[in-house]
Amino acid sequence: MQMGTVIGNVWATRKEDELTGLKFLIVQPEMPDRTSAGTPFIAVDRIGAGFGDQVLVTRGSAASNMSNDKQLPIDALIIGIIDSVDVETKRGE
Amino acid sequence: MQMGTVIGNVWATRKEDELTGLKFLIVQPEMPDRTSAGTPFIAVDRIGAGFGDQVLVTRGSAASNMSNDKQLPIDALIIGIIDSVDVETKRGE
Amino acid sequence: MQMGTVIGNVWATRKEDELTGLKFLIVQPEMPDRTSAGTPFIAVDRIGAGFGDQVLVTRGSAASNMSNDKQLPIDALIIGIIDSVDVETKRGE
Amino acid sequence: MQMGTVIGNVWATRKEDELTGLKFLIVQPEMPDRTSAGTPFIAVDRIGAGFGDQVLVTRGSAASNMSNDKQLPIDALIIGIIDSVDVETKRGE
Amino acid sequence: MQMGTVIGNVWATRKEDELTGLKFLIVQPEMPDRTSAGTPFIAVDRIGAGFGDQVLVTRGSAASNMSNDKQLPIDALIIGIIDSVDVETKRGE
Repeated sequence: MQMGTVIGNVWATRKEDELTGLKFLIVQPEMPDRTSAGTPFIAVDRIGAGFGDQVLVTRGSAASNMSNDKQLPIDALIIGIIDSVDVETKRGE
Repeated sequence: MQMGTVIGNVWATRKEDELTGLKFLIVQPEMPDRTSAGTPFIAVDRIGAGFGDQVLVTRGSAASNMSNDKQLPIDALIIGIIDSVDVETKRGE
Repeated sequence: MQMGTVIGNVWATRKEDELTGLKFLIVQPEMPDRTSAGTPFIAVDRIGAGFGDQVLVTRGSAASNMSNDKQLPIDALIIGIIDSVDVETKRGE
Repeated sequence: MQMGTVIGNVWATRKEDELTGLKFLIVQPEMPDRTSAGTPFIAVDRIGAGFGDQVLVTRGSAASNMSNDKQLPIDALIIGIIDSVDVETKRGE
Repeated sequence: MQMGTVIGNVWATRKEDELTGLKFLIVQPEMPDRTSAGTPFIAVDRIGAGFGDQVLVTRGSAASNMSNDKQLPIDALIIGIIDSVDVETKRGE
């Protein structure tokens, strides 16, 4: 999974039928220290993430393994809102 | 998902049998502010996207999760035509 | 999907059993104007592509969605031989 | 699969329901000689990996092929804790 | 698929249960002329590849389409040992 911060929203009225009602957020991928790391992308959110939240995102077709009856054509899903990140900097201590 | 703009079309008469009738568009991937971000690729379109439209594209095998009976060998699908993008630039406001 | 040109062949006598009889071609990925764009890779061809053909390639596990009984361990499939590419360079005209 | 070292943990109370109870570790991808190679990412661990361990990680939707009843929306899984790596530097000897 | 050369082995005693007995090789990805192209990765081998062999590797979740009863959490599989590579350098001749 990738860490990132929610930086915005995308609206699309005309879309694949099955996707009606889903929320699409713009996520800026980040390093553990929250410096930017790569190009922003769009992720589906079902857990109530909002602007500025640090999130955990599953990318690729695994994103479509949501607990629905069928697999949707989505390739990024916010799976968690991060409470804390603990990075240790010394090996073996 | 990735944002991008439709910049052209590709025609292929000889193709895998199951793909007959699909429309193949060339998409230039872009940042939220519509500056280019990477190499153009080809996506299937079923929702009527056209030249110049800003679109939302699912890449990878999730693209084949279209509402058909079987999964097709495609790796990019235009899932929405973007109405508006809202990027906020200050955290916590 | 990715555009590219067929630049060669690969032969492998010893291989996973299910892959016997498949044709493996080397594809140079390209931009719409046919300038090179990245590292050559190997794709399965079932539609008769040959040296110098400009092709459309599906990459990733969607390539295994061929019309067979079972999914094979392949990650690139030539899905079309390109007749023409139409890239428009001015927006909204 | 990718080699890497566990460098930390991520906690997320609010998450997709099915993911409750999973452990999320931060992995720094590495070359065989353990020099860093790319951006840290988050992987699910079920085999007891800990800080400083050199691990083998499956990325992409294959990570969801865990021995469960259903496929989860995760895209990285620690599949092994590495005991030793043997890289030979001369061909044909 | 990707071409590469087997440059070593990885051993991991503690691993996901289903992976017991699989052989994990280190592969250096290469161009058709065997110059290096990217970061080494780990692939499962079931066809007897060894040190120095030039191999064809399927990456991503398609690697788990092995002829088994269930799909395993692996993302790279050696599918062939290359006998010969034929790259032509002039178009249309």
